[in-house]
Formats: sequence, structure tokens, C-alpha cells
Amino acid sequence: MNKKVCNTLKMIGLFLVGTTLAASAQEDGGVSLEMFTINNTWMMIAAALVFLMHLGFASLESGMTRAKNTVNILFKNTSIIAIGLLTYALCGFNLMYPGFAEGSSGIFGFAGFGIGAEEVGITYNTGYTYWTDFLFQAMFAATAATIVSGAVAERIKLGSFLIFSVIYVGFVYPWLGSWKWGGGWLDAKGFYDFAGSTLVHGVGGWAALAGAILVGPRLGKYISGGVKPIMGHNLPLATIGVFLLWLGWFGFNGGSVLSADPELVSFVLVTTCLAAAAGIVGATLISWIHAKKPDLTMALNGSLAGLVGITAGADVVGIIDSVVIGFVAGLLVYISVVFFDKIKIDDPVGAISVHLVCGIWGTLAVGIFGGSEFSIVTQAIGVVAYGAVAFTSAFIIFFVLKAISGIRVSEEEELIGLDIGEHSQEAYEGFQIFATK
Amino acid sequence: MNKKVCNTLKMIGLFLVGTTLAASAQEDGGVSLEMFTINNTWMMIAAALVFLMHLGFASLESGMTRAKNTVNILFKNTSIIAIGLLTYALCGFNLMYPGFAEGSSGIFGFAGFGIGAEEVGITYNTGYTYWTDFLFQAMFAATAATIVSGAVAERIKLGSFLIFSVIYVGFVYPWLGSWKWGGGWLDAKGFYDFAGSTLVHGVGGWAALAGAILVGPRLGKYISGGVKPIMGHNLPLATIGVFLLWLGWFGFNGGSVLSADPELVSFVLVTTCLAAAAGIVGATLISWIHAKKPDLTMALNGSLAGLVGITAGADVVGIIDSVVIGFVAGLLVYISVVFFDKIKIDDPVGAISVHLVCGIWGTLAVGIFGGSEFSIVTQAIGVVAYGAVAFTSAFIIFFVLKAISGIRVSEEEELIGLDIGEHSQEAYEGFQIFATK
Amino acid sequence: MNKKVCNTLKMIGLFLVGTTLAASAQEDGGVSLEMFTINNTWMMIAAALVFLMHLGFASLESGMTRAKNTVNILFKNTSIIAIGLLTYALCGFNLMYPGFAEGSSGIFGFAGFGIGAEEVGITYNTGYTYWTDFLFQAMFAATAATIVSGAVAERIKLGSFLIFSVIYVGFVYPWLGSWKWGGGWLDAKGFYDFAGSTLVHGVGGWAALAGAILVGPRLGKYISGGVKPIMGHNLPLATIGVFLLWLGWFGFNGGSVLSADPELVSFVLVTTCLAAAAGIVGATLISWIHAKKPDLTMALNGSLAGLVGITAGADVVGIIDSVVIGFVAGLLVYISVVFFDKIKIDDPVGAISVHLVCGIWGTLAVGIFGGSEFSIVTQAIGVVAYGAVAFTSAFIIFFVLKAISGIRVSEEEELIGLDIGEHSQEAYEGFQIFATK
Repeated sequence: MNKKVCNTLKMIGLFLVGTTLAASAQEDGGVSLEMFTINNTWMMIAAALVFLMHLGFASLESGMTRAKNTVNILFKNTSIIAIGLLTYALCGFNLMYPGFAEGSSGIFGFAGFGIGAEEVGITYNTGYTYWTDFLFQAMFAATAATIVSGAVAERIKLGSFLIFSVIYVGFVYPWLGSWKWGGGWLDAKGFYDFAGSTLVHGVGGWAALAGAILVGPRLGKYISGGVKPIMGHNLPLATIGVFLLWLGWFGFNGGSVLSADPELVSFVLVTTCLAAAAGIVGATLISWIHAKKPDLTMALNGSLAGLVGITAGADVVGIIDSVVIGFVAGLLVYISVVFFDKIKIDDPVGAISVHLVCGIWGTLAVGIFGGSEFSIVTQAIGVVAYGAVAFTSAFIIFFVLKAISGIRVSEEEELIGLDIGEHSQEAYEGFQIFATK
Repeated sequence: MNKKVCNTLKMIGLFLVGTTLAASAQEDGGVSLEMFTINNTWMMIAAALVFLMHLGFASLESGMTRAKNTVNILFKNTSIIAIGLLTYALCGFNLMYPGFAEGSSGIFGFAGFGIGAEEVGITYNTGYTYWTDFLFQAMFAATAATIVSGAVAERIKLGSFLIFSVIYVGFVYPWLGSWKWGGGWLDAKGFYDFAGSTLVHGVGGWAALAGAILVGPRLGKYISGGVKPIMGHNLPLATIGVFLLWLGWFGFNGGSVLSADPELVSFVLVTTCLAAAAGIVGATLISWIHAKKPDLTMALNGSLAGLVGITAGADVVGIIDSVVIGFVAGLLVYISVVFFDKIKIDDPVGAISVHLVCGIWGTLAVGIFGGSEFSIVTQAIGVVAYGAVAFTSAFIIFFVLKAISGIRVSEEEELIGLDIGEHSQEAYEGFQIFATK
Repeated sequence: MNKKVCNTLKMIGLFLVGTTLAASAQEDGGVSLEMFTINNTWMMIAAALVFLMHLGFASLESGMTRAKNTVNILFKNTSIIAIGLLTYALCGFNLMYPGFAEGSSGIFGFAGFGIGAEEVGITYNTGYTYWTDFLFQAMFAATAATIVSGAVAERIKLGSFLIFSVIYVGFVYPWLGSWKWGGGWLDAKGFYDFAGSTLVHGVGGWAALAGAILVGPRLGKYISGGVKPIMGHNLPLATIGVFLLWLGWFGFNGGSVLSADPELVSFVLVTTCLAAAAGIVGATLISWIHAKKPDLTMALNGSLAGLVGITAGADVVGIIDSVVIGFVAGLLVYISVVFFDKIKIDDPVGAISVHLVCGIWGTLAVGIFGGSEFSIVTQAIGVVAYGAVAFTSAFIIFFVLKAISGIRVSEEEELIGLDIGEHSQEAYEGFQIFATK
């Protein structure tokens, strides 16, 4: 073959290689622009779904509490998403994903204030842009405070709660998150938490526990040694909340794959949904047997329990495992709700039982069902480490706030309701509502 | 270089540009990994949207009935999604898509208990993974029982309904589904049902009819020869339900393309939305003319009627056809609601009219508007075959349950409401609600 | 040609086929089928999210008004989406995107009645199909009338409002839209409005102002020189509405990129969400300071204010700019609500303040923050041009309707509520609701 032809063929070859590099062919871990675009699209949709979880929390929490405190709960949840996004842009994102240097202790890092993309597009990450990364993680961040909101509902001072949220979402959550997802010391140890049974739900749950202890039970909840149930005022609203949370979990867990990987994302969605379903069955059965009647709020909390439980290992456990994990979580949430009432820690919506207890269960479950590369001891170390620091941090913040400005509304305000007390507004203007509870 | 080689190279060059521009060349039915990923992502999103329909049903059904039965309806709908997912994993999926062998009668097949992917990724299907397939179809499955739930609301025994749901969703729905979507005998006959006017809505609607007949009308509904309207207690909730159902239909119909095919999916979404819009107009006009006032619940049911009507042929009818189909469905739903009240079959939410009547209309409409490859006779054969077996199956299940444990709550419980009777819970604690209805 | 060359060419050919199977490559602005499919999928999802905004509006408007007018508001919002889709199919789409010819004045064009794709797939557009284009734009169109619905709520005649909606959505909105998005005279002038601060929210807001002026304030709102607040009846419902609207804005702004461009879409989502968050902070702060209590409805309207404000420039302003724009919008919405009450223009849900005032702010903000290619003068010209024609058009339509059939219900009907008056239905059957307000 003559030289010229050879060269032409070579040029075609180079053109080809160029094309396929820009096009698809995954070389050296690279992906095509198409694959990058679909990955990023999925991650943006996942972020939108996690955003919707904040409406889920707002609906669930207000539905599960009394009508007189509804405006207050809705206001807190609306504020939290604002606080979450703004503090995460200001410092949280750069605190959570500092990219620890070689030889760093992996305990604390900070990349400076404010967000802004230095690297763009595919060079930042093959699964999403810088902006998508920020948005997805920011939506997660706000969740931690939302969980607390439920446990301290109906008696916490609004201003104190908002200050707590700013500190906890802006600083504690991202700092603790960096230990694992930021590539910190627990990541190095081999601790595994796929989408946040511990990093999100545990961290939120421990703070919920600290808050519930320090703020104390609602008036009239534990009287003369017994437990007086205080029923939620709007169970359709609570149900809307739970279904939206479940839907949001498609993004919470599905997005935690960090790409649109067809096999892995779809598998995660199946384990996630089966665990939720099994959680409903577990919580329904135990409540039906123990309390003689099938309790709707338990069925709802059962689905959330299953979802929190599967979150740590949704990608590494098997199908049957996911059903077992969800079912056990459903049992646990019931037992836990009864237990916390017994030790007189008042949690109006069962947030501690759902997020903390089932978060611990899910994290340990990775060690049980996740296969030989996971160690239940390492998982337990992670649970304890997070618990110690998250609980202590939240306890200190609430304790200081209590000392300075108080964290609980007056007895008079609690009786009349925080809607009138904190907002001079009523949630259901014109409706006749009994003031007796 | 000689001329011929030059020309050949040039042709190759042109071929390159042409090919890469139009791209991805599907050979041997194969698709690129990128195309597979986007197809699968769309299908997962469609599954999420169909999941949301269960919140839509829960909201619609509880909003359209009385406050005293709200917890019960919410509990049923929460249970149904759990039952649907778990039974479909256990046997439904393998019953519905057995892949009938050559020469099989195509009436019954079963691929064994439990799910698990033998083939992964693109080799399973070019449009979605095994797991996505399961999830999408499982979300559909639960719909059948949800439709029944509305028709028998406010008087059916919870336990009996749950048992019915397990059998109907776990066995009857997937078995009947296999006749068409599993490649069974009706598929071989040329029967067409794009997304389930008959396979989902008809199968659910026939069971709703069987249940409504056997459980009988609510107390006080048909008195002294007349019909006493029993109004829903929360129309904002019902409206939320309908809009979420419509949104869910983006996945129900859009996902039934089984890929992200740009032209086909977007066309299907347009026919779907136009039919829903025309259904609103049809139902509003007839109710405004006949009852003198524009009825909100009719407008809402009109949109659902249009959606059910377009479901069988959303991909094969034209734009104007879709408007006609939706408009006629809107008229039909009103006429049907009046008709079933006349023959004293009590259906609190109009489920039979929406899902069965408009499901039949939509299935036949494929024969009318779908073009020459579709036969209205074949469509009618499908409608009759499904009707005969679905109605009979549901009738037998309810009949046996009635004989064994009863399917209707006591008169006393019906009057006080199923929320107190079955759950010892109230949906709206603290609200003053008239007990008179 | 010699054999070796032939073989080499053949190998290249095979390689080509392989590559193009895996492949894509963008030449001459063309995109691969994969990229087209993902672009189109994102646009369909965006359309679905914008659809959901109509549920958001329905929930927000009914929650912010009195229980006795709820059915009426829900009915209007259900009708508007039907009207929007059908009129946009009949003429709106062809009026808004006529594709002005060279030398046309760019003021009015019409491509004929009815929709139907002449060009299919990628040849129509690299970002979406003809059908996706129609659906996305149709969902936008209905928004204009929905904004009006809120401002004239609780006293407008249903029939007159529906006629207004048909004309305004079917003709005025698409005609005015063509000036910019259809490539008309304002587009030629360099006016910029990314996703519709003026084209959608302004056009809706001006009509809301015209309607509110002509229909007059609600009975009892402005008495003896003072302003009597009329509270919304269901703030959880209003909150659901606002969160759904925010979610819808992921599609409203994110979809306005008109492709799935990873960098641009994700950046737009970040500016959008930060503006919404900052709007909450702005509106909360000013209401807390000025009215002494943090007002939930102000926080909710603050988020919408931020969203409307960022809509015109979400793709061209910076991160900090987006926070400033949202924060200022949050302040503005509060000031504006107080102002309109002072001049006795009664707007039950604050629609004029949110959509018109913040729409103007957002449009001008492009000139302030958008960089040197944007001129605040040009932006102001656009605002004035749209304002003059939109306000005048709406005023004329309402004026003529007022002269012919009246636009306001009788005093008696207003007192008893439009639900009974227009629909003979109640939204909350069985609930005890005070009739005093």
C-alpha cells in the first residue's frame, strides 16, 4: 500500500478515535458526553425528588400533631429548606467534601466559603456537574434538621429552633458527613453507609433525641405514671407526607448511586421499595397483634422505618435481605415508640424511632447481609462514633440555647398553641376545633 | 494515491459524518449503552410516577367519602401498595410474564416463585433492566385492587378486603395480564391494549362491580325509591388526588412505550393530556346542562375518564381522535354514575364508571380510531373475555369471603364509621364533625 | 485498487459500524440520537413538572382563601388546565411560535389552526420533538390564567372567568409570547426573559391587576378606612401548594434551557433554588420586624417571589446575584402586599405582588446583574410594552364581560360563598365551619 493511502487511513483512524472519545467509548474511566448528560439528568431529578421530601416531612409532621401547632410546624419546615440551601452554599458543601489530602487525619477539612465551579462538566465528575453535586447534597443537608423538628414539635421556641438548625445544618451535619462521604477517617476504616442510614437519618435522629430530652415532654403527655396518647389532627395530611417521602426516596437512594447506572439504580429502587412494603407489613402486624387494632400511623411509620433501614445497604444486600431488613425495621419502630414512651421521652411523630433506631438497624444490617467485605464491627464503630459526636454536639447547642434564651415556650403558649403564640395565625381559620387537647 | 481509493475514502468519510450525525445505528435490534441508560432512566421515572398514583387514589378516595371512614381508606391504600409489591415479587411478575412457549395455549404460565435477574442489563431488554421491568409492572399491579377499594368503601370489612387484595393482585391480575402483555392467546389474536384500559382499569373495574354488588349499598343511600347523595368530606384532597393521578399517567402511558423513544413517548403524552382535558369539558358540560350546576367531582372524574379512555390507544390514535375519545369518556362517566345509582349499585367514588365503563370505551375506541390494523370485533372479544373471567373471579373470591367471615361491617360500625370501628382512630382529631351523615 | 487497501478499508468499515453502534459525535450543531433522546426526555419531565404547578396553584389559592369558596377555586383551576391544553392545541401554539418571516414586523403571526407534526424527531429540533414542544409550552400557557384566578377569587362569576380564560390563554398570552419567544420584535431588540418573569408571570400578573380593579374588593375587606385581614382557611394546603410550585419550577426554569445541557440546566436549578430560599428569608425578616411575628403566608409568598424574580435571568446571573435577587423579591412581596391593601386593590392570595411586582423586578434584574450584553433600558422597554398591552387586553375583556353578563356574583352569593352559589357543593361536608367570615 502506498504511503499516501496509509496516511489517509491513519487520519481517518485518528478522526475515528477522536470521534469515539468525544462520543462514547469509555476509555480510562471516561464517559461520553451523552452518558454524562444522562447521568447528570438523573442526578438532577434525584435532587428534585429529595427536595420533595421536605414537603413530605412538613405534611407528615403537621398531620401527626395537633391543629393548634400546625402553622408553627409548616413555618419551621419552610425555613429549614431555606436555611439548608443557604448555609450549604455558604460553608456546608465545602466542609463536607473538602477532599482530604494524603496523610490528613480525615477528621476536619474546609475548602473555604461560598460555592463556584472551578472545574466544569465532565472533568469535575463523570456522573454530574459541580452544580448538580451541590444541589443534590444541599437537599440532603436540610433533612437533618427536619428530623429534629418532628421530635421537638409542639413546645420548642421558634427562634431557638431556627438558630439550632443554622448551626446543625450549616456545620455539624457536613462536618460529620465528611468522615465518610468526604473521604475521611471512617471511609478509610471501611465503614459503609450507602445513602445515609447513619450519616443523614442517624445524625438527625441523635439530635432529635438530644432535643427531645432537653425540651422535655409535652404538657399532659405523661400523667400519673401513664401515657396519654396525643393524636395527630390530620391523617390524610400525614399520609400524603409519607407517600411523598417514599417517592423522595427514589431520589435519595436512587441518586446515591451517583450516576444513572441502569443495573445498580434500578436494583436499589427495588430493594428500597420492597423494604418499605415489608416495613408496612411488620409495623401493621405488630400493632394489630399488640394493640388489637391496625394503626394507620404505625403502618405509615412502618414504611418510613423500612426506608430508613434499607438506606445504608440498598445497593449491597439481596432481594430477600431487603424484605427482612424492612420487616424488622417495621417491628422495631413499633417497639421503639412504645419504649420511648415508657422512659418518658416524648417524640410527637416518632422521629427518633424511625430515623435513629432504624438508622442504626440499617447500618448494622450492612454488616449482617452485605457480604464478606463488610464488617459488623466496623459498622458498629461508625454508629457509635457518629452517635457520640452528633448527640453531644446537638446536646451542647440546645443546652447553650436553653441557658441563654430558653428553648421551650411558656406553659400558657403551649396550651393555646404555638400558632397563636409564635405566629398569631391559625392553620384552619373558620373551622370549629376543640381546644381541649 | 489513486483516484478510486480517494473516492472510497471520501465515501467512508461521508458515511462517517452521516452515521455519527444520525448516530448510534441500531443494528440487530441492539442499542448503545447510552441509549439503554436513557431508556432505563425514563422507565424508572415512569415507575416512580405510577407509584405516585397510589397517593392519588388514596387522596381521591378519602376525599370523596365521609370523614368517619378516612383512616380506613388511607390504611387500605397504604396496605395495597405493600401487598402489590410483595405479592408481585413472590409470584405475580412470574405469572404475568412467563414467556409462553411456542405452541402453548397462552392461557396460563408460571416461571416459579421469587424474583432475581438471570440476564443483566442490555441483554435482558434494550429498554430497561430486569429490576426496572419488575418495579414498573409491580406498580401497575397494585392499581387493580386500589380501584376496587373505592367502590366498596365505607362498608367493607378491612380483613376481608385485604385477603381479597392479596389474591386478586397476587394471582388474578397477573394471570389475566399474561393473556396480552405476557404474549398469551389474546395477544396472538391481535387484541390491542396499549397501557391497560382493559388489562388494568377494566380488570380492576370488573372486580369493583363484583364487590359493590356483593357488599351492597351504604346505609341510607337508596331510601324510599330515591337516591340520597352522600357527599365527599374533603374536595381539596380529592382534587389533589386527581392531579396526582393525571401526573402519574405521564408514567402510566408514557412508560408503556417501554423505552424513551422521543417521538412516540411525547406523542403519547400529548394524546393523554388532551384526552384528560376533553374529559373535563365533556363531564362539566353534561353536568352543567343536566344538573344545572357545574359539579367539581364530575369535572375531576371527567379528567380520569378521559385518561382511562385514552389508555388503550394513546399511541395509535390521532390528535383529534384523542380529544373525541376523552370528550365521550367525560360524557360516559356522568351517564354511568347516574345509571349505576338508578340500578342501586352504590359506588362512593364512581370507580366503576371511571375505570370499567371508560376502560371498555377506550378499548373499543382502538377499533374505531386506531386504523385498519385494529378490529373492533377483536377488541370486543378481549373486553368480553376479560370481563367474564375478571368479574367471575372477583365475584367468587368475595362470595367465599362473605360466606366464611363476612365482607360487610355491622350496621352499628357503619353508622359510627370504620375509623373508630376498625382502627380506633379518627382522621381529624379535634375537629368538630357532624355525625349525622 | 489493491487488495490490502481494500481489506484495510473493510476493517475501517467494521470499526466504523462498531463505533457508531457505541457512538455519537456532534458535527454542524447536530446531535446524536442518544443526545436527542436524553434532551427530549428531560423536556418531557419538565413538562410534567410544569403540569404539577397547576396543582400547586389550586392548592395555594384554595388554602389562602375561605372555606366557603374552595370548590369554586378548585373548579376554576381544573378548568384552566383543560382550557389551556385545548386552546393551545387549537390556536395558541401556532400563534406563539409562528416563525416570523424575514422582514416581518414581528408583532403578529399565525400558522393556522390545529397541531400536527410536519417534521419529526431530530429534524424538528435537537432538544425535543414537536410534541414535547407543544406539551411544554401548553403547560406554560395555562399558567397565565391561573395567576388571575387567585387575584379575583371569592367574588368573580364562574362563567365570566371561564370566558376570560379562554380568550386570554387562547389568544392574548400566545400572541404576546410571540414577541420574544416566537422571535418577534422584542427578541430582535435584545430583550431577555429566560423563562418568563415577564412573558408568563408579568402577563398573568397584569391581567390579575386588571381583574382585581374591575371586580372590586371582597365585601368587608376595606371597612371604615381600615383593612380587615381575611385569613386563608387551610394553611397546610397552601404550603403543599407552594412546595409543589417550587418543585414545578425545576421544570419551568430547568426546562427553559430547552435541552438537558448538564452545565446550564444544573446551574439554573441552583440559582432558582437559592433565590427561592433567599426569598423566604427576605419575606420572613421583613414580616417579623414589621409585623412583630413571622408570618407563614409571607414566608410562602417569599419563596414564590424569589422564584418569579429569578425566572428572567436564572441562566445569566451569578450565584450571589441569585441570592440578592431572591432576597429583594422577598422584601418586595411584603411591601407590595401592604401597598395594594393601602390602595384598596384586594388580592386574596397576593398574586399581583408575587407575579407582577416580582416579575418586573426579575426582568429588570437581568439588566442589573446579567452582564454587559443586557441593557436595563431594553428590559424596561419590554416590561412597559408587555404591561401596556397585557393590562389593556385583560381590562377590555373583563370590561366587556362586565357590561354584558357581569363579572361579580351577587352580594348574597358572596356572603353564602361561591361553593353553594355556583356549584351547590361544599368543600368540607360535615365539618363545622363558622359562617361569620
